Amino acid sequence: MERFKNILTFLGFDNEYKDSKIVVFGSPFDGTTSFRPGTRFAPSIMRNESYGLETYSPYLDKDLEDISVFDAGDLDFPFGNTKKVLDMIRDFTAELVEDGKIPVMIGGEHLVTLPAVEAVYKKYKDLYILHFDAHTDLREDYLGEKLSHATVMRRIWDFIGDNRIYQFGIRSGEKYEFEWAKEHTRLTKFNCNGLKEAVKDIGDRPVYVTIDLDILDPSVFPGTGTIEPGGISFHAMMEVISMIKDLNIVGADVVELSPHYDASGASTAVACKILRELVLAIE
Amino acid sequence: MERFKNILTFLGFDNEYKDSKIVVFGSPFDGTTSFRPGTRFAPSIMRNESYGLETYSPYLDKDLEDISVFDAGDLDFPFGNTKKVLDMIRDFTAELVEDGKIPVMIGGEHLVTLPAVEAVYKKYKDLYILHFDAHTDLREDYLGEKLSHATVMRRIWDFIGDNRIYQFGIRSGEKYEFEWAKEHTRLTKFNCNGLKEAVKDIGDRPVYVTIDLDILDPSVFPGTGTIEPGGISFHAMMEVISMIKDLNIVGADVVELSPHYDASGASTAVACKILRELVLAIE
Amino acid sequence: MERFKNILTFLGFDNEYKDSKIVVFGSPFDGTTSFRPGTRFAPSIMRNESYGLETYSPYLDKDLEDISVFDAGDLDFPFGNTKKVLDMIRDFTAELVEDGKIPVMIGGEHLVTLPAVEAVYKKYKDLYILHFDAHTDLREDYLGEKLSHATVMRRIWDFIGDNRIYQFGIRSGEKYEFEWAKEHTRLTKFNCNGLKEAVKDIGDRPVYVTIDLDILDPSVFPGTGTIEPGGISFHAMMEVISMIKDLNIVGADVVELSPHYDASGASTAVACKILRELVLAIE
Amino acid sequence: MERFKNILTFLGFDNEYKDSKIVVFGSPFDGTTSFRPGTRFAPSIMRNESYGLETYSPYLDKDLEDISVFDAGDLDFPFGNTKKVLDMIRDFTAELVEDGKIPVMIGGEHLVTLPAVEAVYKKYKDLYILHFDAHTDLREDYLGEKLSHATVMRRIWDFIGDNRIYQFGIRSGEKYEFEWAKEHTRLTKFNCNGLKEAVKDIGDRPVYVTIDLDILDPSVFPGTGTIEPGGISFHAMMEVISMIKDLNIVGADVVELSPHYDASGASTAVACKILRELVLAIE
Amino acid sequence: MERFKNILTFLGFDNEYKDSKIVVFGSPFDGTTSFRPGTRFAPSIMRNESYGLETYSPYLDKDLEDISVFDAGDLDFPFGNTKKVLDMIRDFTAELVEDGKIPVMIGGEHLVTLPAVEAVYKKYKDLYILHFDAHTDLREDYLGEKLSHATVMRRIWDFIGDNRIYQFGIRSGEKYEFEWAKEHTRLTKFNCNGLKEAVKDIGDRPVYVTIDLDILDPSVFPGTGTIEPGGISFHAMMEVISMIKDLNIVGADVVELSPHYDASGASTAVACKILRELVLAIE
Amino acid sequence: MERFKNILTFLGFDNEYKDSKIVVFGSPFDGTTSFRPGTRFAPSIMRNESYGLETYSPYLDKDLEDISVFDAGDLDFPFGNTKKVLDMIRDFTAELVEDGKIPVMIGGEHLVTLPAVEAVYKKYKDLYILHFDAHTDLREDYLGEKLSHATVMRRIWDFIGDNRIYQFGIRSGEKYEFEWAKEHTRLTKFNCNGLKEAVKDIGDRPVYVTIDLDILDPSVFPGTGTIEPGGISFHAMMEVISMIKDLNIVGADVVELSPHYDASGASTAVACKILRELVLAIE
Repeated sequence: MERFKNILTFLGFDNEYKDSKIVVFGSPFDGTTSFRPGTRFAPSIMRNESYGLETYSPYLDKDLEDISVFDAGDLDFPFGNTKKVLDMIRDFTAELVEDGKIPVMIGGEHLVTLPAVEAVYKKYKDLYILHFDAHTDLREDYLGEKLSHATVMRRIWDFIGDNRIYQFGIRSGEKYEFEWAKEHTRLTKFNCNGLKEAVKDIGDRPVYVTIDLDILDPSVFPGTGTIEPGGISFHAMMEVISMIKDLNIVGADVVELSPHYDASGASTAVACKILRELVLAIE
Repeated sequence: MERFKNILTFLGFDNEYKDSKIVVFGSPFDGTTSFRPGTRFAPSIMRNESYGLETYSPYLDKDLEDISVFDAGDLDFPFGNTKKVLDMIRDFTAELVEDGKIPVMIGGEHLVTLPAVEAVYKKYKDLYILHFDAHTDLREDYLGEKLSHATVMRRIWDFIGDNRIYQFGIRSGEKYEFEWAKEHTRLTKFNCNGLKEAVKDIGDRPVYVTIDLDILDPSVFPGTGTIEPGGISFHAMMEVISMIKDLNIVGADVVELSPHYDASGASTAVACKILRELVLAIE
Repeated sequence: MERFKNILTFLGFDNEYKDSKIVVFGSPFDGTTSFRPGTRFAPSIMRNESYGLETYSPYLDKDLEDISVFDAGDLDFPFGNTKKVLDMIRDFTAELVEDGKIPVMIGGEHLVTLPAVEAVYKKYKDLYILHFDAHTDLREDYLGEKLSHATVMRRIWDFIGDNRIYQFGIRSGEKYEFEWAKEHTRLTKFNCNGLKEAVKDIGDRPVYVTIDLDILDPSVFPGTGTIEPGGISFHAMMEVISMIKDLNIVGADVVELSPHYDASGASTAVACKILRELVLAIE
Repeated sequence: MERFKNILTFLGFDNEYKDSKIVVFGSPFDGTTSFRPGTRFAPSIMRNESYGLETYSPYLDKDLEDISVFDAGDLDFPFGNTKKVLDMIRDFTAELVEDGKIPVMIGGEHLVTLPAVEAVYKKYKDLYILHFDAHTDLREDYLGEKLSHATVMRRIWDFIGDNRIYQFGIRSGEKYEFEWAKEHTRLTKFNCNGLKEAVKDIGDRPVYVTIDLDILDPSVFPGTGTIEPGGISFHAMMEVISMIKDLNIVGADVVELSPHYDASGASTAVACKILRELVLAIE
Repeated sequence: MERFKNILTFLGFDNEYKDSKIVVFGSPFDGTTSFRPGTRFAPSIMRNESYGLETYSPYLDKDLEDISVFDAGDLDFPFGNTKKVLDMIRDFTAELVEDGKIPVMIGGEHLVTLPAVEAVYKKYKDLYILHFDAHTDLREDYLGEKLSHATVMRRIWDFIGDNRIYQFGIRSGEKYEFEWAKEHTRLTKFNCNGLKEAVKDIGDRPVYVTIDLDILDPSVFPGTGTIEPGGISFHAMMEVISMIKDLNIVGADVVELSPHYDASGASTAVACKILRELVLAIE
Repeated sequence: MERFKNILTFLGFDNEYKDSKIVVFGSPFDGTTSFRPGTRFAPSIMRNESYGLETYSPYLDKDLEDISVFDAGDLDFPFGNTKKVLDMIRDFTAELVEDGKIPVMIGGEHLVTLPAVEAVYKKYKDLYILHFDAHTDLREDYLGEKLSHATVMRRIWDFIGDNRIYQFGIRSGEKYEFEWAKEHTRLTKFNCNGLKEAVKDIGDRPVYVTIDLDILDPSVFPGTGTIEPGGISFHAMMEVISMIKDLNIVGADVVELSPHYDASGASTAVACKILRELVLAIE
């Protein structure tokens, strides 16, 4: 009898690396989380729970069984050393990009987006960012720290520059962040109005899509670090994915699920379904 | 001093069997549940919690105190023997139907609907089914099993035939189930659009209404076995009940509450209120 | 080294009493709660959790840092003596009103509104009440008790009289309460339609605003004593606050958060944000 | 077909009142609870959960099926009126005592013991009290209130007098209470050492046994209002019951289960098993 | 870049099948569970959580890194078909035994032990059973069903015969089961006294060890289907393992963890540590 | 009317800094936690919950009301910068020591002990450490990081040297750590045997006491990051405090409560009571 070690992948992805255009991986880091930590558990719990999900999407009329995605597992981070963690994500993403893959990262907190975008940007200098979030994430620093989930979009702006970051759903931040955004990013408060125009503007240029799941209302998604009432519905998020599905997406992430804070499991199920739809939309 | 044993009924129903047109009973079975079990606890927890609910409905402007409903308690099932459980439900429902009662069953998982419909169908050969659910439930078999919560509508179709099952709110299933439904049932994806027309088509023919509560969005109803983000709102469900209230309902059920998965109690409260409205609508 | 004792205030309010127009305080009483108690914990848990909230409101474009609010802490109640508790609230509120402050009380259960309104009414005989709630609260008595969360609006009516109480969002009560309201209050079922007209009618007369948070749907706010499915959304509540912000509000409260029943913390976050918006709207 | 309303009793007690020596009933009152309320839910949740328990005790080698106990249901209290609640308990217990029954009450908080003992004492002037608890409960008043869970043993002492109350397991109280106890009760700190001697002293005189379940360590019984680390084990409690089983017990209670605070259900299971053993020991 | 699919194993077991003497696998079945289901989740959650555990045991002074164990993953069961599930376990275990491996199964409910023992017994006709449990599991049938977690030891006795089953820790069952055990098994109530003698009696004959984790007190292990207060401590369980470590163990299992019922994770941690010690003891 | 801002202190400590010998403060840091984070919440939740605790200890027969302790609040840390956090703790503790106070720190994770001991050691070169813990904490590095909760005792050894650290209750670690300890620390496995001798050896030399609460068994204290079954009981911890109460304690801490992982609140209550006893013992 020949037997193989137990394998566990997101959504049952069962393809080889070399055959896959999309590579999903986990970045279980929550080191700069300022309120409730625990996004480190998101990748492993999503893998476990994603078995409850059908492979077929009635939204997009596509089936995961018809596409090829590879799950590379989680990066194995040290604890308490933010810089080293960011280096590891940047290096890993860069390898994927060099191999011609589209990285789809599961956070972790939002700071993990910074090194992933850096790696993608190295190849795609005309990169645009679609940023879905409750929070501006545009602080210059946070309690003196330059590298933080609360500064991540500002750090990306540092190298990507003005008007390349579209922000949607934003409903929380300091007053000065909203002011600053008027000059430097394209920020839409509360909802995703204007996404259709953004998609048209971007055209076929390369795009990185970062979804901070706290853009969703806490009724839909309580399992996150900082709860911000007043978010969008799950239906609105499905419309977002439908609108972006023809873009030239060269990288993406889904961040800020903190699964222990929603014992019902609903937040994890929401994250899994958005991951399914996102992967199907990219393909 | 004369004293009576402690009585506990749904919503405080306090009528005798012989005086009641509607009979509510519990079928605490979750033997084929494929993900998170626990719907077996729904009837007993709903009885306990339903005392927090007013008897008057401002939606329908009707009061439970003005109608007569009997709570027959729960069927007492063996564990691990699916066939025997289904036989017990079928026999019990048949007795109610013979006595001229309208059975309203509280699940348990969705497979309990099969024997209840079989018993009702024996009397009403022109029966129609209104099926509210997140899932198609149209698999030919599930991991080799013919009798499953995931096959229940297919098993009902086996004897009731084409175009007698109306399905609403469906947002999950295998691709082939959606294809199959195009020929054999009347399936509406995501919402309950078209219910008004269905009601008109059915006219005064006998109808069995089966409400899988996971048709509701997990924000409203996380306490269920398989969480499917993207469901309808509680308001939409109230509109459903308002639309069906003049139909000739000869049997009904409310299934798939798994109360332990929602520690806030909101899911149980939702189930209790839908039961109240359903009973008032049938009356 | 000089060091000060640990201070903890709602939303980090850091002003002195004498400089503040608004005074926030907690009334941790749940003695007449008929179903799930625990609103006594709302003020202390809201203080702890409110640190996660930004001071700036993108809804009102105002910042708590620009206004002066004082947190007076919680009243220290005896247990099991309803009358004494109400006396303490009445006396404390009266002192605030005498000092020219606007009291903003955090419940506790809804009965705490009675003595606060009595104190405010003593100064403002032409007082109007804006009442946001799932429940009528218009019972003449509740299980024989005149003083109850279920009778509070009726007790206020006893001295304030007809057509001075506007009720919004009401979706639960006994039939006779709805009938009684037709003559004596201005009750809107299910939603807040008609609030604009109410605001216009009231004009610049003094208003007390009482927000029973269970007006919100349980999907948004499960952490309360009696769960009533079918409530309004958080967006609708933000619109309410926007509509009332130019009224002459002379007192307000936010009641019925029972934080232990929502382990995700979402209900507490909702309560904190509504408190922030309410305070900014009054200012 | 003849059908009966749904009946639910503690431990499946299925006897008639007239045939039963022991009558169990619930007093779901928590109006003076000073920390975490919720003992009001103990009787109903214990009824539901007690079905998981075998009727046979391997500790006492006795079976509930061989004895006759009646479950009279719960008293139906008003909210917010402590005095009226105590009157109802006193009257009800007095009726049972007059009918020659042994009352076994399920709390609720510990104050419910006062009226029950008053009723029993009316018949048995030479009554002794066995009090198992973490707390002294000997305050003269609590925040000004004479009637409180924290004063209950002092109130009983008011009429029963010195050296008639044996207290075991006590590990919390004000310093003056421990001092006072030296003169007026027989208090054992931390454990139940000396119970054997107490049993011998009491002989065949009538005894009322009151078990505040927080005598158990929070590891065994976290589901209570005020958690006091350092309690006794479940084995120790079984020994207690074994030691008192030949006493002339004329009344008893089991109080202070607050089931919502232990989501695992272990505390409720502990309470049910102690109730089973207590009833078997009295019989 | 070469990359491998994500692998997840119990305790990080990282050996090949052919090199391993011990094979661990999961049997996620809870189909006959009579109270709270959910043991189906035990294997997957134990795999996830076991990463928090050190490989070195200070109890046995042994290290998992020094031995070779293979994790074969979970069997993939149908739902609602008890017989088929038992066949799959029997066949799989038989293959392992034929390959000369020692099977260590993770339940699931206790009925999974029956087919595993059947498979082991086929090879070892002089097999003894060491059974650690809160419950007798000796019913002839349970609600009419022969195959049940409550009958499993009786079914094993059917073929293994008198005095080959040693039972320890038993504290719950029907009276007749305890009677029956006196003739047919060697049952020790409440604790594991006499285990040393049993070990001596058995000598070097082959033994199957089945550990129903509810032998532990609910304070240690609340995460199980039927909570039975009065169990043994974790230290006592460590002593058990120390006492059996020189036996000729040819098969073993650890069953009845229902992880969702202990949100603290303590029960899962207990199960993982017992699995580590058991595997180290067998080696 | 004069009113003061809301004050919240551990155990209601109500003294001024200048009058107090003991200063309690919080270090809400969990940046190197390798499994379940959340110890950052311990100080604020302990402040809230400690109001449920009596000031009198029947163990020590001492009362907090008779001694003077100051609560300095929590240090306000940046997120994601381990080095800066340690600097802040070291500086703050040094100031306290200079002012002649005895620092009693509430963690946070165990790494916070390092800078506190460094500050105390600067003054007391002959310092001894009493270390109560489940874990050795003697790794040379952890995943490449020198500064970690898993290396904290090794880092203290780096400057304090051989045989100055007494370790009790240790039941988890890598094999090489146990080996290393034989040469360099005085490690007792599993329990606190030998503490009496240690106390005698130390005599009146200055001692720093660090209590990692996970020394307690998870049945007593599940609310921690890494659950290690097999710990000591609460009674054993009370004996520890009784044994050390005459030592010359010049600093102490209580770390590793992660309160969100024990929803029952028992772990927080345990931590509060140990803090009370520790403070009374030092006094």
